[in-house]
Amino acid sequence: MKQTATFIPTLRETPADADVKSHQLLLRGGFIRQNTSGIYSFLPLGKRVLQKVETIIREEMEAAGSVEVFLPALQQAELWQETGRWYSYGDELMRLTDRNDRAFALGATHEEVITSLLRDEIKSYKKLPLNLFQIQSKFRDEKRPRFGLLRGREFLMKDAYSFHATPESLDETYNVMMQAYTNIFTRLGLNFRAVIADSGAIGGKDNHEFMVLSEIGEDTIAYSDSSGYAANIEMAAVNVDYPKSDEAPKEMEKVATPDQKTIADVAAFLNTTPEKCIKTLVFKTDDDLVVVLARGDHDINDVKVKHATGAKIVELAAPEEVQELLNCEIGSLGPIGLPPAVRVYADNAVKAIVNGVVGANENGQHLANVTPGKDFSVDTYADLRFIQEGDPSPDGEGRIQFAKGIEVGHIFKLGTTYSVPMKATFLNDQGRAMPYIMGCYGIGVSRVMAAVAEQFQDDAGFTWPDVIAPYEIHIVPVNMKDEPQRELGEDLYKLLKSYRYEVLLDDRAERAGVKFADADLIGMPVRITVGKKASEGILEVKYRRTGETFEWKREELLDHLQQFFKK
Amino acid sequence: MKQTATFIPTLRETPADADVKSHQLLLRGGFIRQNTSGIYSFLPLGKRVLQKVETIIREEMEAAGSVEVFLPALQQAELWQETGRWYSYGDELMRLTDRNDRAFALGATHEEVITSLLRDEIKSYKKLPLNLFQIQSKFRDEKRPRFGLLRGREFLMKDAYSFHATPESLDETYNVMMQAYTNIFTRLGLNFRAVIADSGAIGGKDNHEFMVLSEIGEDTIAYSDSSGYAANIEMAAVNVDYPKSDEAPKEMEKVATPDQKTIADVAAFLNTTPEKCIKTLVFKTDDDLVVVLARGDHDINDVKVKHATGAKIVELAAPEEVQELLNCEIGSLGPIGLPPAVRVYADNAVKAIVNGVVGANENGQHLANVTPGKDFSVDTYADLRFIQEGDPSPDGEGRIQFAKGIEVGHIFKLGTTYSVPMKATFLNDQGRAMPYIMGCYGIGVSRVMAAVAEQFQDDAGFTWPDVIAPYEIHIVPVNMKDEPQRELGEDLYKLLKSYRYEVLLDDRAERAGVKFADADLIGMPVRITVGKKASEGILEVKYRRTGETFEWKREELLDHLQQFFKK
Repeated sequence: MKQTATFIPTLRETPADADVKSHQLLLRGGFIRQNTSGIYSFLPLGKRVLQKVETIIREEMEAAGSVEVFLPALQQAELWQETGRWYSYGDELMRLTDRNDRAFALGATHEEVITSLLRDEIKSYKKLPLNLFQIQSKFRDEKRPRFGLLRGREFLMKDAYSFHATPESLDETYNVMMQAYTNIFTRLGLNFRAVIADSGAIGGKDNHEFMVLSEIGEDTIAYSDSSGYAANIEMAAVNVDYPKSDEAPKEMEKVATPDQKTIADVAAFLNTTPEKCIKTLVFKTDDDLVVVLARGDHDINDVKVKHATGAKIVELAAPEEVQELLNCEIGSLGPIGLPPAVRVYADNAVKAIVNGVVGANENGQHLANVTPGKDFSVDTYADLRFIQEGDPSPDGEGRIQFAKGIEVGHIFKLGTTYSVPMKATFLNDQGRAMPYIMGCYGIGVSRVMAAVAEQFQDDAGFTWPDVIAPYEIHIVPVNMKDEPQRELGEDLYKLLKSYRYEVLLDDRAERAGVKFADADLIGMPVRITVGKKASEGILEVKYRRTGETFEWKREELLDHLQQFFKK
Repeated sequence: MKQTATFIPTLRETPADADVKSHQLLLRGGFIRQNTSGIYSFLPLGKRVLQKVETIIREEMEAAGSVEVFLPALQQAELWQETGRWYSYGDELMRLTDRNDRAFALGATHEEVITSLLRDEIKSYKKLPLNLFQIQSKFRDEKRPRFGLLRGREFLMKDAYSFHATPESLDETYNVMMQAYTNIFTRLGLNFRAVIADSGAIGGKDNHEFMVLSEIGEDTIAYSDSSGYAANIEMAAVNVDYPKSDEAPKEMEKVATPDQKTIADVAAFLNTTPEKCIKTLVFKTDDDLVVVLARGDHDINDVKVKHATGAKIVELAAPEEVQELLNCEIGSLGPIGLPPAVRVYADNAVKAIVNGVVGANENGQHLANVTPGKDFSVDTYADLRFIQEGDPSPDGEGRIQFAKGIEVGHIFKLGTTYSVPMKATFLNDQGRAMPYIMGCYGIGVSRVMAAVAEQFQDDAGFTWPDVIAPYEIHIVPVNMKDEPQRELGEDLYKLLKSYRYEVLLDDRAERAGVKFADADLIGMPVRITVGKKASEGILEVKYRRTGETFEWKREELLDHLQQFFKK
């Protein structure tokens, strides 16, 4: 491609409204432009990157036995009403009516559409399993679109859905998809982890997010420093054997703790440690209030509280609700003297405390020398806290460390969550109608592009991996008015294209400085500068990622390039 | 692809609600399914065809210097308000609001979006011309979606937009696009014509529709039997030299024509011919009423009336309006005794009539022996009628014939229609701000697929051209339980795939009759039947389009296939 025939509007300045590196550089390099909040146009370079990400995903999905389809974005409301998501999805689902006032959703995801498609066609277990994918624009009206392509309102997604007669068949496809995703993100050169994720109301332990490790990630990953274990921090089980203190339990006593608001304050004031304090929180679980206890140096994980209580909705009780229940402020809560109907949950670590400190359910007062079992009882001990850095890894190998991650993929065992309400059934080998067992597998294609952009850059611009760089080679004649330079540039352009390289030729009448700055900014893997030595047939070659430069004769060029690109 | 791993839900019966051949067969062959009126899912075979059409279009667009982008479907209302199309586009434009009540259009076309994108970036004539295309879902809320993919509400489209500093540059790109479209439709094997089309309010003679000739076409094409001339019938100029009769004009006389309603009735009753009758129609042009005359055997073309009168909206006046103007029914109208303010337009053919017949503006009465110029005057003579079969071709070569056509592409010189209201300007070589001169170039990708499906079929099913058949070769082992058949089938499958053929293997445990019927129905170019002679290494090969069958030894196969596919 000749640069004068395409559209690469680079910017010198970093756009003020772009707050992460990938977004800034995608704008500066002329890869994308924002149309309006969370909605972007992909310009020629951006479209090429997107297309290459698509191709890698398509190849790996097909190799894994998934078959491509193309489903509509306009989805009749009736389908979403069948599963109830028309009502539960909230403002993120974009809705409209047609000229006849029929309601539609704009495809945010396609479980309903694909399930309705198959339920009319696949009646026998003999036609299962089936794994279908598509690559298509999705629409989600995010409350706070941000970080450019990382959280947009219209974005490109690969979504796949599998249908099975047995759980074993789903397990098999799930593992195949896990491997396909690993191949995809590996080919893209991303530093990623497959992470155990929260399955929400759907259940099933096999539910993984693929996270690209990145400072700007919105999720925290807990991973082992010695094994492959990695989980979303919400999901990381704490597997610690807390040794019980050999102190003898003392007599409980009430102590005044005026103006001591935090655990750290109280511990210092009472000359003890946070590990010997017990923090008490009140949660609202569906319609109940429950008390949850944890060690003073631990944080309570509400996803675990949700699992332990079996409630659908779990949230911290409001101060007024606490006041009404216990007649005291949040800073002085404790497990002693609770109304008898209130259930008490405690994290496993609490059980090992002897002579600890708890709030007295009386403002400005605490109780010291408190020992669980002796001074108060707990209904349920469970793993209720967030894992911490340094904790042993739940798989028994190594210690936990934290990292931030960008979610780029998610694979999910849906089970019969959609097939049951949609009455999507097949006849099993006994002739009985059974709901399909389903899996779903998503990749944010445009988000992947942003994640790669975030990872592959330096101060001068992008350092794209070969496989998704918009072009492989950037030929830059320094001065297009210089006949030998122009001619050699165009000759090389034709030559390299004939060898099937993807080549961009900077045939603009710009100053050398502008051309070099643009070349570094847009970041093709190899730059060939055609300068003053053009008449001698000598070229300067720069590898963008390493910064290495070489002077090569024209005759040597093809061999070197072949080595670089391993073609 | 093994057939058990993909999803090809063929139907034995023709679906009752599908009214054209392509739609019926795309449903029966399991290529598509309807989600709701005008909205379709592309199943695996349909997606493959679509993808191949896309690839041909992409290759030709790129070869013609157009560069691919990807623009959003969600388009802020403000852009459409700038050009006024927010108000004028009507119900076909689908609209919605986001969670903050901001209004959006769903992309029906992208002139506004792309013009707004470029106006912020291209400030100098030095960066022009530019030609950008995309392939993307479009949304148009058709009043009557019909004919399956031919007129849908969500459909795949290739749209391109070019930007120029001079009209000459637009002309050049327009011609390049004309050639690219010709290449595309030729490669697809379509029987098509580039047809001069109505440019509506935009003007410019270079505005062509690409029409696939087909009985089910909704447009009529007038083409020369001897030259390349072809035009939408609305646009075909009538270029006839009407010889003036050498009859001497007689005295006009009023004659009673009781119950004679039509021109044919009146002519017969008065013992003359329709050619000597003058039909009189009243048109409403914007806010005026005008009288339009034509020969009795001709039909008035309202597009030509629109051009002749310069009105923006032209429609036949309602009977009540005519009654109020002339106090007479429509069957007895004539040009004599009109109110002085009413302008009279006549088709050129009228000028040559001597001693003709006209209505008397009095119910049941006509005037005979009427001669234009003598008995009434005409304000404007012009070409106002539809061309007819047998008329001389307007280019002077041959005679006109009619055909029906399906519009699959449209290329259009937009000029400054969008750039002026959107204030999208560049600085020309004199430093003056000028609006971009634009062209636009569309192809209905999914409609092309339907047009090919309409053309390439026989009683048994599809007869796809090699270039867009979902697979090239269909291997059909007759009996999968027969070891030699199954093994040879799978061997061939691997072999042919290793030679880069696209192969479908019917590994289903179905009866032979079902397999053959399905194979004919979905229509891959070459079918290889692996039957009883499998153990001898003998295969039966059928060419789907010609129906020819051959018995070949396994060793001969590759050579024959290479010849067939010219690989």
